[in-house]
Amino acid sequence: MFEQENYEQSHLYKLRHTAAHVLAQAVLELYPQAKLGIGPPIADGFYYDFDLGVDEGNGRSQSFHPDDLPKLEKRMRQIIAGSYSLNYRQVSEAEARQQFADQPYKLELIDDLAARDEPISIYQHDSFVDLCRGPHVVHTGKILADGLRLMSIAGAYWRGDEKRPQLQRIYGTAWPSKKELQEHLAMLEEARKRDHRQLGRELEIFILDEDIGPGLPLWLPNGNILREEVEKLAHEMEDKVSYQRVSTPHIAKDSLYLQSGHLPYYEEDMYPPMEREGNRYYLKPMNCPFHHKIYASKPRSYRDLPLRLSEYGMVYRYEQSGTLMGLLRVRGLQQNDAHIYCAESQLEAEFMGVVDLYRSYFELFGIEKYVMRLSKHSPEKLGVKYVDNGPMWLKAEHIIRDVMLKNNVPFVEAEDEAAFYGPKIDVQIWSAIGREFSLATNQLDFGVPPRFGLTFTNQHGELETPWCIHRAPLGAHERFIGFLIEHYAGNFPLWLAPEQVRVIPITDEQNGYAQQVAAQLKASGVRVQAVLDGDRMQAKIRAAQQMRVPYMLVVGEREAAAGTVSLRKRGGSRQNGLSLAEFDSLIREKIASRAANL
Amino acid sequence: MFEQENYEQSHLYKLRHTAAHVLAQAVLELYPQAKLGIGPPIADGFYYDFDLGVDEGNGRSQSFHPDDLPKLEKRMRQIIAGSYSLNYRQVSEAEARQQFADQPYKLELIDDLAARDEPISIYQHDSFVDLCRGPHVVHTGKILADGLRLMSIAGAYWRGDEKRPQLQRIYGTAWPSKKELQEHLAMLEEARKRDHRQLGRELEIFILDEDIGPGLPLWLPNGNILREEVEKLAHEMEDKVSYQRVSTPHIAKDSLYLQSGHLPYYEEDMYPPMEREGNRYYLKPMNCPFHHKIYASKPRSYRDLPLRLSEYGMVYRYEQSGTLMGLLRVRGLQQNDAHIYCAESQLEAEFMGVVDLYRSYFELFGIEKYVMRLSKHSPEKLGVKYVDNGPMWLKAEHIIRDVMLKNNVPFVEAEDEAAFYGPKIDVQIWSAIGREFSLATNQLDFGVPPRFGLTFTNQHGELETPWCIHRAPLGAHERFIGFLIEHYAGNFPLWLAPEQVRVIPITDEQNGYAQQVAAQLKASGVRVQAVLDGDRMQAKIRAAQQMRVPYMLVVGEREAAAGTVSLRKRGGSRQNGLSLAEFDSLIREKIASRAANL
Repeated sequence: MFEQENYEQSHLYKLRHTAAHVLAQAVLELYPQAKLGIGPPIADGFYYDFDLGVDEGNGRSQSFHPDDLPKLEKRMRQIIAGSYSLNYRQVSEAEARQQFADQPYKLELIDDLAARDEPISIYQHDSFVDLCRGPHVVHTGKILADGLRLMSIAGAYWRGDEKRPQLQRIYGTAWPSKKELQEHLAMLEEARKRDHRQLGRELEIFILDEDIGPGLPLWLPNGNILREEVEKLAHEMEDKVSYQRVSTPHIAKDSLYLQSGHLPYYEEDMYPPMEREGNRYYLKPMNCPFHHKIYASKPRSYRDLPLRLSEYGMVYRYEQSGTLMGLLRVRGLQQNDAHIYCAESQLEAEFMGVVDLYRSYFELFGIEKYVMRLSKHSPEKLGVKYVDNGPMWLKAEHIIRDVMLKNNVPFVEAEDEAAFYGPKIDVQIWSAIGREFSLATNQLDFGVPPRFGLTFTNQHGELETPWCIHRAPLGAHERFIGFLIEHYAGNFPLWLAPEQVRVIPITDEQNGYAQQVAAQLKASGVRVQAVLDGDRMQAKIRAAQQMRVPYMLVVGEREAAAGTVSLRKRGGSRQNGLSLAEFDSLIREKIASRAANL
Repeated sequence: MFEQENYEQSHLYKLRHTAAHVLAQAVLELYPQAKLGIGPPIADGFYYDFDLGVDEGNGRSQSFHPDDLPKLEKRMRQIIAGSYSLNYRQVSEAEARQQFADQPYKLELIDDLAARDEPISIYQHDSFVDLCRGPHVVHTGKILADGLRLMSIAGAYWRGDEKRPQLQRIYGTAWPSKKELQEHLAMLEEARKRDHRQLGRELEIFILDEDIGPGLPLWLPNGNILREEVEKLAHEMEDKVSYQRVSTPHIAKDSLYLQSGHLPYYEEDMYPPMEREGNRYYLKPMNCPFHHKIYASKPRSYRDLPLRLSEYGMVYRYEQSGTLMGLLRVRGLQQNDAHIYCAESQLEAEFMGVVDLYRSYFELFGIEKYVMRLSKHSPEKLGVKYVDNGPMWLKAEHIIRDVMLKNNVPFVEAEDEAAFYGPKIDVQIWSAIGREFSLATNQLDFGVPPRFGLTFTNQHGELETPWCIHRAPLGAHERFIGFLIEHYAGNFPLWLAPEQVRVIPITDEQNGYAQQVAAQLKASGVRVQAVLDGDRMQAKIRAAQQMRVPYMLVVGEREAAAGTVSLRKRGGSRQNGLSLAEFDSLIREKIASRAANL
């Protein structure tokens, strides 16, 4: 949501939280043996995790039936109608343990609360008691029965850990009005139609192949044009502000990652090593250590800073199989990466330079809704998940907060979301139909430059360690293009469209003229084809529409005689009798300016 | 050599071969315990391999001392002066075994000759006898003492197999005249000055780093510009002839390589697998299987052919440590790769299209000497090194030979040099100073398309297997840029030069004007910097010369007042009082036309 902190205080959040409790009560009535996991509100609704025990028939974990959802929804409506109050009570550890004596997952949560010496509280309504710190609505009647919908069932590991038991998750959504529920369902339906996996195949953008491996997309010619256009855009934007491009290998010896700290901090997310002749090589999960080596390849002076090294670098991360999804969550990703090495006095300008880059991209792509989040470390995980230097964490977080406030950039804050080497700004964006995507990142690294012994000679002739900003305003090609497919529903603006113009002769008589038109446009740098095969004109037009080609040029006897074209835009509008020269200059201008509209 | 077959019949070849025998005699006199390996003529001279036995002092293999070379050379001159005849005699296997009873490597060669039922022959001069089929000069006096030079000592595995003993190799060269020897030595000296490793560091083109790993270069910003310019050139040339670019991951599961035949035919050249969750992933040593998957991703008709899929794809090959050398032999290489899928009737046009592509590149880069070699299979290695289909090998070799002859393209032929899936044309090129490089390849693959079940529907509605041409006219970035560094001695033509223009103000007073000049040129797409730091003008000029910047623009009071620039070209020529607009249009034209001269 746009303002995450406000969401947690909102009525919407509370009613979804209460809906999760009501769901858990309904499940316990249907499956009295169920063990409860957790049940939080999320961006678009809520979920609750359950362990239904082992099926004695086949010895496997028991799962919900799809027809459980209507039953549960019906029972939830009854509980809502009961308007049961939600009662909060702080309890002792002993009482909590007694209350949840037969709920092992809750006991584990109590262990954690006790270890951290945090207050333990419960919420009760009707017959149902949950370990919970709230907040909730005052009684179950505050949930609108007509605004409620159970959505789906999925598997989820306890605490997201694939070594722990797999639980059954029920997703639901709840809204304060029937209208809002319907809008939400309509958005999901629209998202389904715009599903990047479906469109990705239809528009021949990418494929996945089981002999290559999960999460490793192959870009087909059309998808590769999208990649190249996005990359060209990034190069142009970065050239303007003096980035220098480099190119580095996809593997390196373990000694590099030991130095960077990826071993051990990031090892779980890495592919396993390749061992030969006594060396262990790893696929790179990030480009940064390679850029640090380039920084270190010669002595640097304050006059060389800021040094901005960029690379559209392909990295490999071993994401869990269950989380992989089309282009949106992959194992091989090509990042719009760069590392900016600078003195502390340059941090503000450099950091804001990156934020400005974000905003110009968002404007170009018509991304109207986005939120920046300051992702911070968690003091308890110093030395485990984060480099062990508490004071520097606080300093770096303070620097970012300060820069953002001073420049009036709205942002929220979140604990325990930082990179292992420093805090960062993460950017969430919303597509044209209101779905949320994680995109860009802008990280302030104090942890790694000293590990690589990076230095520069300052104005006083002394060696000083530079700061390093890691940034990826367009994220990775994979996710960003996945986003663009949904955002535009495959109707890419002209400059991005894999095929910009299709020339369609009315009869075979005009094949020669169609080829001539295509050749002239191609010479102007337009991606164009003339379709000459035996199909009828109407079939050719339908095929072009299916491929979302922005401009069709229909040429018949009249056009061939006059040296003109009849333009049909993707939206349906038409313009007849354009001279070819006129059209040529029109389309070149549209492409060069990266116009949003046809 | 330009005509390899002729070389083997030439006087030069014979005299080098005899020189190798003379060297072996001299070595045996100095180290009577030495065991002889082989001693063939090579492109620029000859070598002979020796096993000097184990040093009893330290238990390690004994090696030559550097001062052995002058001693051996002196003794060789005496043997030359003796004008000993070379006497050929065919011998029985038994006699050969007796003759070489204490020469284990020779006995192994005799085993092979006997197994293949080939004639066994010896050559004798003076006291020295070698297992040899010749040819030789008639007597040792035909070697010109003043044309002879022993060059260097190196280690070399017996039969190039790292599991066999390491022998000591002595390289020498021999020429029919003193002048030719001196020209050869001058070329080597020039090559040393142009050494791409030295210039690569000085011009900040690439680095190697031991934490990354051997054979894995990192491209610095200047080197990356070379990469990008070469790639842009390839894209333009390929766009003209309708290649479609794709992009594929760097890893895949073993099932892909089992299907392609890389496992087992190519396994030794691959990095070892990464194993996780029961899957084995390998780094790709070639892009072809990935392109085959893209071909197979939808049904193809004869109307879709030829389909030309291209990718500047990075591949990884585990070359032996001892053979790695700068950019010329690496383990990570980005290939100018493409695969052309076509019907048999299209083979000639497609194959010649690739040959034409070569020739236009050679013209652009001023490569005047090159030779094409038809690399064929070896019937004895069917099923081991080559896919096991003798008749198809002959057919494919015949097709290539036929196309080359029909189109009057000169070529030589070589056995046992093919790819595992088909024969190929390999291209050797010579740099401006006459050094030979292996560059491009053009392969005719009949072996793999059927393994991937690739098909197209032909004109008769039947499924047919396409042929596949693998081609890489510019080889890999790594080797090609290594070649270009030597070829141009770092003096890259304007369009390739990482920094095209450096603007140098005569005094700090002109810093503002210098910046203005640089800004205008940058807006025109020129790679330019104005150097404003405190150094004196002469120091700035020297620095620009060291970096081989093609154009320096010196701007003083007069230029600032008149809006002009004074141009100093890299060669030294000057042109004063050029208006900035004039210079701007001049340089744009030079860059756009990829002019060879400044």
